[in-house]
Amino acid sequence: MATNPHAERLARAGKELAGRGVDALLLGPSADLYYLTGYDAPPLERMTLLVVPAQGDARLVVPALEAPLAREHLAGLDVEATPWNETEDPVALVRGALDAAGAAAGRLGVGDRLWSAFLLRLQAQLPAAEFLAASAVTRALRMVKDAAEVEALARVAAAIDRVVDGLGELRWAGRTEQDLARDLDRAVRDAGHDETCFVIVGSGPNGASPHHVAGQRVIQPRDPVVVDIGGRLAGYCSDTTRTLVVGEPPDGFAELYEVLQDAQEAGCQAVAPGVRAAAVDAACRDRIAAAGHGEHFIHRTGHGIGLEEHEDPYIVEGNDEPLAAGMAFSVEPGIYLPGRFGARIEDVVVCTETGARRLNTTARGLRVVDG
Amino acid sequence: MATNPHAERLARAGKELAGRGVDALLLGPSADLYYLTGYDAPPLERMTLLVVPAQGDARLVVPALEAPLAREHLAGLDVEATPWNETEDPVALVRGALDAAGAAAGRLGVGDRLWSAFLLRLQAQLPAAEFLAASAVTRALRMVKDAAEVEALARVAAAIDRVVDGLGELRWAGRTEQDLARDLDRAVRDAGHDETCFVIVGSGPNGASPHHVAGQRVIQPRDPVVVDIGGRLAGYCSDTTRTLVVGEPPDGFAELYEVLQDAQEAGCQAVAPGVRAAAVDAACRDRIAAAGHGEHFIHRTGHGIGLEEHEDPYIVEGNDEPLAAGMAFSVEPGIYLPGRFGARIEDVVVCTETGARRLNTTARGLRVVDG
Repeated sequence: MATNPHAERLARAGKELAGRGVDALLLGPSADLYYLTGYDAPPLERMTLLVVPAQGDARLVVPALEAPLAREHLAGLDVEATPWNETEDPVALVRGALDAAGAAAGRLGVGDRLWSAFLLRLQAQLPAAEFLAASAVTRALRMVKDAAEVEALARVAAAIDRVVDGLGELRWAGRTEQDLARDLDRAVRDAGHDETCFVIVGSGPNGASPHHVAGQRVIQPRDPVVVDIGGRLAGYCSDTTRTLVVGEPPDGFAELYEVLQDAQEAGCQAVAPGVRAAAVDAACRDRIAAAGHGEHFIHRTGHGIGLEEHEDPYIVEGNDEPLAAGMAFSVEPGIYLPGRFGARIEDVVVCTETGARRLNTTARGLRVVDG
Repeated sequence: MATNPHAERLARAGKELAGRGVDALLLGPSADLYYLTGYDAPPLERMTLLVVPAQGDARLVVPALEAPLAREHLAGLDVEATPWNETEDPVALVRGALDAAGAAAGRLGVGDRLWSAFLLRLQAQLPAAEFLAASAVTRALRMVKDAAEVEALARVAAAIDRVVDGLGELRWAGRTEQDLARDLDRAVRDAGHDETCFVIVGSGPNGASPHHVAGQRVIQPRDPVVVDIGGRLAGYCSDTTRTLVVGEPPDGFAELYEVLQDAQEAGCQAVAPGVRAAAVDAACRDRIAAAGHGEHFIHRTGHGIGLEEHEDPYIVEGNDEPLAAGMAFSVEPGIYLPGRFGARIEDVVVCTETGARRLNTTARGLRVVDG
């Protein structure tokens, strides 16, 4: 019998649970559930919960309506689907599954993104249990990508790079950020993504707000424009940022951009197995601080990426997690001058035995587009 | 000074909290937060939490990166934004806000969809507090729509009806459900929605699975096809279902459809202030059962709709909530014959003093499209 990758992941989850003294995972519709079973459950007010005990088979408590689709996804896995009807209490079924596994009074890892309304119901009906975040167990599983996952990330990165390659063909000056965002939304899908996840277009002073999305501002000649875009393909996420200038750069921008490009390169160069996540952040930050812009780099350097846009490991001061081959994350320093302009360069990289492999490969030099 | 609708909603929330003996609400990015403040916060791993005490002003604990945008949305409201930096602990700031309101050891309503990872951190740092679902308070606020909300629902319903009006112009036979779903996704956006929320195309036997989405099945002549579509416009959701037939209906379908149409009409006729939600469900169910199809109506009759696709009130057996003028919900009975076909008719209605006002108004009779 061929190995089912999800069966292998469920088995690893069981080992991880046992090793960490956690008795069961309780996972709602989430990347964790999809990672372990391949079931991309819709987030509903009707409870869907996968119970993964440290010992024994997993069980999926699922609304009866969803059970046929769920069973298709679970085919070939030792996961029994337990449907509940509209007027039944799904928490009683979860409790039954935990009782069967001897875990109802144990330590239970609940999915980090499980809705609180569900957790409160579980806590009320499982008063002897201790609840903790499932990521205490699942981050160890999901943080290191296997070869197929790296391939999926490379494929979706290539799709977003095709959008970046086409930026010069768009008209910029005289159009609003929202107009550009609409074009880019379509371009992300046309480039092969299943969906667009986000489009940030920050022009001129708006580029100095890292999480500005896209507004009514009309893009002007000589504006720097921060373009941060991402989508999803076969479950995996893309995320890249390039900063371009509409015609001649404004005073001081080229110098600032040079500092930034140097810092982003330093961050990528710092990536290697065993290096702490925080050291990659420091590598970027030190270059920017040395150039006198320390106070203008106002966010962490990056975030893990995979089935979620943002996941472990976070590339941030204080995160002593040692990097390992297979970890995938963004390296995206930025420099933001309030009221004037901002710039950011972002690539998704995978840590390999020999250092960072950049999955985004479009040109990083200062890019001028026609008005 | 003109009345800010969100200021009025926050004031009502305070009264509702006091009346129910709840000391504060803790709301993450959610429809609750948007309803009370107009701030459509992005769901992030960085904690954003609005603290609404029963007495005194609300406070928003927000990642520093998001603070400028948040402040724009909160302008004119007595809500102070308290930003936190990458290496700070936002829960300490939440605790501070609760301490200031004398609520740190009180009864705290946490947003129903707040991520469990956040609730677990709150519980750990607020050991004396009692946590309950915020909907105990917010459902009373949000369930009854004001005139502006009804108008927003009517506008988005009109947009989805334009898509339904165009169904006859699409080619059906010989194409996959996914092909049609792609056309419909675009049509929903082209009809004026800000985004498509879902597209269900269930053809032939797939129509007998109410939550089948859209697959590789090629639509055949004589197939009934269940089309259930919805999107979002200015925050509010649309949701309608029509079932059409590609050419001549299969044996028995027209009779079944007649029962269904009659049941859906009966459900709408049952709507009036003071009537229990469950009575609307029973009105549909009784007609279907009387025709011998009771076991083939395998889901509740409807769900509330507003800023969320599914919200209170649920039109389901056991829900004794009395309807009130301003409540908006779907009436969507279905009949499903496993292995053969299914049918569903869905309108969003608003309860008025004189009964149901249907917001979806496209024809409900059996509709035949050309192959």
